[in-house]
Amino acid sequence: MRYVQMATVGLDGRPANRTVVFRGFLDDSNQLKFVTDARSQKVAEIHQLPWTAVCWYFANTREQFRLAGKLTLVGHQDSNSFLQSARAVTWQELSDAARTQFTWSDPGKPRVENQEFNQQPPDPLAPLPNFCLLLLNPDRVEHLELRGDPQNRRIYTYDGQLWAMQEVNP
Amino acid sequence: MRYVQMATVGLDGRPANRTVVFRGFLDDSNQLKFVTDARSQKVAEIHQLPWTAVCWYFANTREQFRLAGKLTLVGHQDSNSFLQSARAVTWQELSDAARTQFTWSDPGKPRVENQEFNQQPPDPLAPLPNFCLLLLNPDRVEHLELRGDPQNRRIYTYDGQLWAMQEVNP
Repeated sequence: MRYVQMATVGLDGRPANRTVVFRGFLDDSNQLKFVTDARSQKVAEIHQLPWTAVCWYFANTREQFRLAGKLTLVGHQDSNSFLQSARAVTWQELSDAARTQFTWSDPGKPRVENQEFNQQPPDPLAPLPNFCLLLLNPDRVEHLELRGDPQNRRIYTYDGQLWAMQEVNP
Repeated sequence: MRYVQMATVGLDGRPANRTVVFRGFLDDSNQLKFVTDARSQKVAEIHQLPWTAVCWYFANTREQFRLAGKLTLVGHQDSNSFLQSARAVTWQELSDAARTQFTWSDPGKPRVENQEFNQQPPDPLAPLPNFCLLLLNPDRVEHLELRGDPQNRRIYTYDGQLWAMQEVNP
C-alpha cells in the first residue's frame, strides 16, 4: 500500500490534503521520497510553509502512522549534486506512464480540449525540468495499532540527535 | 471504505492529519458526519480554525475525492435541538466497542498503567459528555478519476446557493 495522504497549509491558510505515492527512502536516511510537478499547487504551498503531516493507514493490519516533518523540494535547478543525482534516479525508476504525466498541460488549470495525452513518453534518463523530487524528513511519528490491547499508541519524536518514544493513551 | 484522512491546521500553525471514520450524512443535507472526543487534539485545532480538507481514496476504483469546507462540533452543551438529536442518534448507531472508547483516559496523554479498558460499555442511548458529533459542510470537492482518459479531474465549488463544476487538467 504505497498511497499516503499528505497535508499542507494552503496559500489561504486553510488545510490542504491529497493522496501521494510513497517512492521509498532516500539512501541511508530516514527521508521519505515522493515526486511532484513544479507546477502543482502543493509546490507553491511548500514554498510558503515546508511542514507537512502525512497519514498512512494500513487497512489489513489496522495500523496508522502519522509522520510530521519538513519537506524539501529538489527541482531541476537544485545545486546539491547528491540530491540532483537522487532526483535523476527517482525519475529513472518511474514507469513510462508516470513520466508521461510530466508532459501534460498545467495540472489544475482549466482542461485543454483535445489535448493529446498519449504522446511519446519522455526520455527515461533525463528528468523533465518540471519534475521535482520531494523529501520528507520526519521529526515526529505517531503509531497507532487498532489491534492492540485494546489499542497501542506511541509517539516518537526526534530532537535532532536522538529519537524518544512515549506511550500514550489511544 | 469508510476511512478518510482529515487535515487541520495545528495549534503551532503546522498541518495535522489523521484517519477518521465516515459515519454517513446528516439527514437531508450535504454534511458528512464524523465523531470525536472533546478531549482530542483535533477539537482544540477546530476551535482555533474550523476549516478542514478531507481526502478520500478509493483503491478499487482508483478515485480520489478531496473535500474542503467548514467543520461544526456538536458537543453536549450545544443548544441546537436538531443537532443535539443528531448527536444522540449518531451515538446510538455506534458499536459498543466504539462507545467504550469514550470511557478511556485522556487520548494522547501519557499512557496510564494498568488502566482497565474492557469495562462495561456505556449507556447506548445517552451520549457521554465528551462525545462530539463532527459535521463537515463541504464548499469545494475535487474528484479525480485515475482510470479516466487518461485521467479526469473535476472541481465542484459551492457559492452558498449553487454548485458549479470546472473540468481541469489532471
